[in-house]
Amino acid sequence: MPHPDELIDVHTHVVPESFPRYLGRHADAPWPSMAPAHACHAHVMISGKVYRTVSQQCWSCQVRLADMDRQGVRRQVLSPMPELLSYWMEPEDGAAMCRYLNEAIAGMVAEAPARFVGLGAVPMQDVTLAIEMLQELRPRHSLVGVEIGSNVNDVPIGEARFRPFFEAAAALDLAVFVHALRPAGMDRLVGPANLEQVLAFPGEVGLAGASLLTGGTMAAVPNLRIALSHGGGSLAALLPRLRHGWRKLKPVRDVLPADPAEEARRLYVDDLVYDAPTLARLIEVFGAERVLAGTDYPFVIMDDDPAGSVDELAAVAVLDPALRTLLRSGNARRWLGEEPSGPATSETEARG
Amino acid sequence: MPHPDELIDVHTHVVPESFPRYLGRHADAPWPSMAPAHACHAHVMISGKVYRTVSQQCWSCQVRLADMDRQGVRRQVLSPMPELLSYWMEPEDGAAMCRYLNEAIAGMVAEAPARFVGLGAVPMQDVTLAIEMLQELRPRHSLVGVEIGSNVNDVPIGEARFRPFFEAAAALDLAVFVHALRPAGMDRLVGPANLEQVLAFPGEVGLAGASLLTGGTMAAVPNLRIALSHGGGSLAALLPRLRHGWRKLKPVRDVLPADPAEEARRLYVDDLVYDAPTLARLIEVFGAERVLAGTDYPFVIMDDDPAGSVDELAAVAVLDPALRTLLRSGNARRWLGEEPSGPATSETEARG
Repeated sequence: MPHPDELIDVHTHVVPESFPRYLGRHADAPWPSMAPAHACHAHVMISGKVYRTVSQQCWSCQVRLADMDRQGVRRQVLSPMPELLSYWMEPEDGAAMCRYLNEAIAGMVAEAPARFVGLGAVPMQDVTLAIEMLQELRPRHSLVGVEIGSNVNDVPIGEARFRPFFEAAAALDLAVFVHALRPAGMDRLVGPANLEQVLAFPGEVGLAGASLLTGGTMAAVPNLRIALSHGGGSLAALLPRLRHGWRKLKPVRDVLPADPAEEARRLYVDDLVYDAPTLARLIEVFGAERVLAGTDYPFVIMDDDPAGSVDELAAVAVLDPALRTLLRSGNARRWLGEEPSGPATSETEARG
Repeated sequence: MPHPDELIDVHTHVVPESFPRYLGRHADAPWPSMAPAHACHAHVMISGKVYRTVSQQCWSCQVRLADMDRQGVRRQVLSPMPELLSYWMEPEDGAAMCRYLNEAIAGMVAEAPARFVGLGAVPMQDVTLAIEMLQELRPRHSLVGVEIGSNVNDVPIGEARFRPFFEAAAALDLAVFVHALRPAGMDRLVGPANLEQVLAFPGEVGLAGASLLTGGTMAAVPNLRIALSHGGGSLAALLPRLRHGWRKLKPVRDVLPADPAEEARRLYVDDLVYDAPTLARLIEVFGAERVLAGTDYPFVIMDDDPAGSVDELAAVAVLDPALRTLLRSGNARRWLGEEPSGPATSETEARG
């Protein structure tokens, strides 16, 4: 029985300590490897270049557990560093990488099953293969869900071709975590490379979430348990405009059977917005039962104090003990399938 | 002396009733023309195709004035339909189109100078030429500012190459209005063509605004009076994350001398967000002295009731008479240069 006051961090990433040698048959496959860096760090090498230098927090359960104790995090949901999703590789290579990641994450969960929950990866560049691998996640790896990118080689996840994937995830009772990946808008940034994560990720996640609405996925797969990273990015800001467009424009109504702002309240979002008023807005837009604690651990942009970020909400909104528990863990348990999902609350109820 | 309770709609567009024949020397220039459509409407034809079918509201002062009286709008700020900015034409053709637009808008202002204020266009694809034409806007056309796109042929407006343009606009005491144009993220949309305006515009404007911060424009041109359309798009949602990135990442601090969330409070934004809580958030983020009434008149996605949109704020925040006047007209008068600009309020003051 979980402690009601535990904190579950749904947004944490894993990089394995090493990768197997590339055994595929495609010359120039961008297969990653690890190279030594300064103490306790390694360079993730892709196509001969340093993609990112990461710390042992990425793979060491011991280090993570010590960090979690310091942060007041009872459980972490582990997911691959998104660049490892490898959608740009040939499907057989992508599948090999996903299998390796799934085994690595399953191994970490096995080290401390009371403290870690795992999400796997599947090769979304081949939907049939992705669905096959989805079926292995729970029985073979004890993983409870899957991380997917916000797009698959520039195709938004709301496109019809991915519908069978989402139907399978729902049928298999798997949680889906949508993470920004190779975002749109890179040519609109002026400044250092880190602006990709800082400025381009939110718009990318927002449009991915919108595509699940306008593409009909949310309407077609009612029991899908799906969460958007980074607070859903720009989606909360897009929804009033989408609702207005839905009211005024027949072509938009033709693809959206119901008010999209209501439909959006079936999505989960993490609370990684770095700002109490923005968090309060997420709760208004998506509902008190839809917001999850998430930090982006262990990357440099992470929220160092997930418990504090929930508690800071009290400065701008009513944070009663029931809401605090929902945000810290109750919503995450429902998203992960550990507790039954109730219906989405209606906007009126949640705001009233 | 303006009436203190007037409402100024800063976001309205013009399409001239006709265009001159193309007189340039570039084969296949995408020069627009008008073709008759159903009663009181015309097709804007570009490269042999209907770009958009528009009503006489786009060019008829009489029709506009009747609409404004119905809406309770005392004055409209006129700006070109953004697709007419023609940044993709050769500079000489772009300049010819801009001159024609500036004359057309000046002509409309001359018909009812108490009811219309005009913004012109300049060929941003050639910054030197753009600055030359900027100098004509006020003395030759009685225009008080300029509309620019959020990008110029995919180059964000915060790029250093545009700095001289913004310096010139500030030195010439011209207001700048930034409108979404050919937005990023089009390949992330799933659904009808209108989703360009509905879903891609906000992210595009948000990244354009962010580029003015990270590219150093706002820091370098302190007396620039610049407004972002569509409520600044996603920018309000991006700022807490940008501030966090600024605190944690040295490369971001290297390009941003000051807290970007504070610097952003020198931007004006219109209130075209279709939602009272989102409007309340704009006021928190940008300041009570920075938000302008704007509708997107006369296009189908327009806000039909700009006065009501201001008044609806009372449902979610304190809307005292002073704030109401600022939102209806006071901020617009300052942005337009009709009243002196005060310093940006600090966040603490505005939230306190």
